[in-house]
Amino acid sequence: MMEKKIRTLLLTIAYDGRRYHGFQVQKNAVSVAQVFQDGLEQVFGKRIPIKGCSRTDAGVHANAFCISLELESAIDCERMIPALNTRLPADIAVLDCREVPQGFHARYDCVGKEYLYRILNRVARDPFLDHLVLHYPYPLDLSSMNKACEAFLGTHDFSAFCSAGSDVEDRVRTIHWANVTREGDMVLFRVAGDGFLYNMVRIMVGTLLEVSRGAIQPQEVEKMIQSRDREQAGTTAPPWGLYLNRVFYPWDKPW
Amino acid sequence: MMEKKIRTLLLTIAYDGRRYHGFQVQKNAVSVAQVFQDGLEQVFGKRIPIKGCSRTDAGVHANAFCISLELESAIDCERMIPALNTRLPADIAVLDCREVPQGFHARYDCVGKEYLYRILNRVARDPFLDHLVLHYPYPLDLSSMNKACEAFLGTHDFSAFCSAGSDVEDRVRTIHWANVTREGDMVLFRVAGDGFLYNMVRIMVGTLLEVSRGAIQPQEVEKMIQSRDREQAGTTAPPWGLYLNRVFYPWDKPW
Repeated sequence: MMEKKIRTLLLTIAYDGRRYHGFQVQKNAVSVAQVFQDGLEQVFGKRIPIKGCSRTDAGVHANAFCISLELESAIDCERMIPALNTRLPADIAVLDCREVPQGFHARYDCVGKEYLYRILNRVARDPFLDHLVLHYPYPLDLSSMNKACEAFLGTHDFSAFCSAGSDVEDRVRTIHWANVTREGDMVLFRVAGDGFLYNMVRIMVGTLLEVSRGAIQPQEVEKMIQSRDREQAGTTAPPWGLYLNRVFYPWDKPW
Repeated sequence: MMEKKIRTLLLTIAYDGRRYHGFQVQKNAVSVAQVFQDGLEQVFGKRIPIKGCSRTDAGVHANAFCISLELESAIDCERMIPALNTRLPADIAVLDCREVPQGFHARYDCVGKEYLYRILNRVARDPFLDHLVLHYPYPLDLSSMNKACEAFLGTHDFSAFCSAGSDVEDRVRTIHWANVTREGDMVLFRVAGDGFLYNMVRIMVGTLLEVSRGAIQPQEVEKMIQSRDREQAGTTAPPWGLYLNRVFYPWDKPW
């Protein structure tokens, strides 16, 4: 009998997070990981362990989320994509599949991520974007929001931008870019860094909205970070505007 | 007692048609009209008759759909919008409200409409656009599709582009523009005319897809129209890519 080779695959998926309680498997709640493993099981006839690049909160979306897994099968990467997509629900899609060195880990080998936060900035809501954007019907001051973003750049202890309930000890993270742009009615916050703390992007957005309405001055954000005190930063914006947008591995090197 | 003045209002709404069986009220099925009237009833305390600009098929969407109604109330048009939006479900939004001359009728005073058909033209599906676009993973030949569109322009008897089951006798319609454009992965068909027959836009799209894959030559479309025979035209594309995109009234005059 021929011995089957064990291969490590890295898959990129996108998902609409509205009906999921985040990526990681949870008791008594539907997760993306569980539904994804159900699809894998239909293709390969057994439960296959998977490693996700990140945890995500309930209701958060992904334009790109990476999963690594070890597979004892000769299936082509190209055939993996349609084989899985036909077994997955319409709100999860496999976009890419590539073979990586054995032992590669979607989370530990990840060198950075970019998040996108989408704000629909007009009076009327959009019936196609319910829980896919934050609907904010008041004027936004992009100039002061972008001034505040400058304080996020570089390496800082982001304890002030981490929700209670996190057991992570090292809260130093490096932010590569952070900015706010407008595309028509949509205001987009993009932030990339080597890693993110629990609710970090959502607290950044909550803080930027308070900067926009004048409750916080852009130059105060630097002191907020220095305080390392969650009470000093702004509120936590809701999950439904948030998208994991890009996941970086050593071969990407975008900074 | 002061006599209340009866006013005629014209509202523009948008809706995600996925959970509705079209606009018009139906027995044993949820319609946009019924849900809209439920919202009106919550605001004004009584059932108010409404007139829609058009029928729409089950699963078809609207970026702009117009409704006229007679109202015995002094409510401002500006206040109508948020008052109704807070009583409507998230998949219907009131975008505009204006007062029009008494007796104005959203359907009979309509001088034209523009439809949009969205085709996601890439291999992977988009998890955020399930039943909001037609997913077509094969190459599309926009050049031949646009050549075929030329036959639609002008005034013709469009019987060949009308599904069985229509009791409309006059099947002559004037098409003002019809074209196909690409925006990234999305291919968009836009068609405007003075009126449309039952399934007319969906049969146009089905025909254009057959033109793209070479099953129909662009120059054959003119003969199809002349035949007045539904059997000669292409298949009917699914409803979920279709959007009523603009509704024209005498003050718009875009052609």
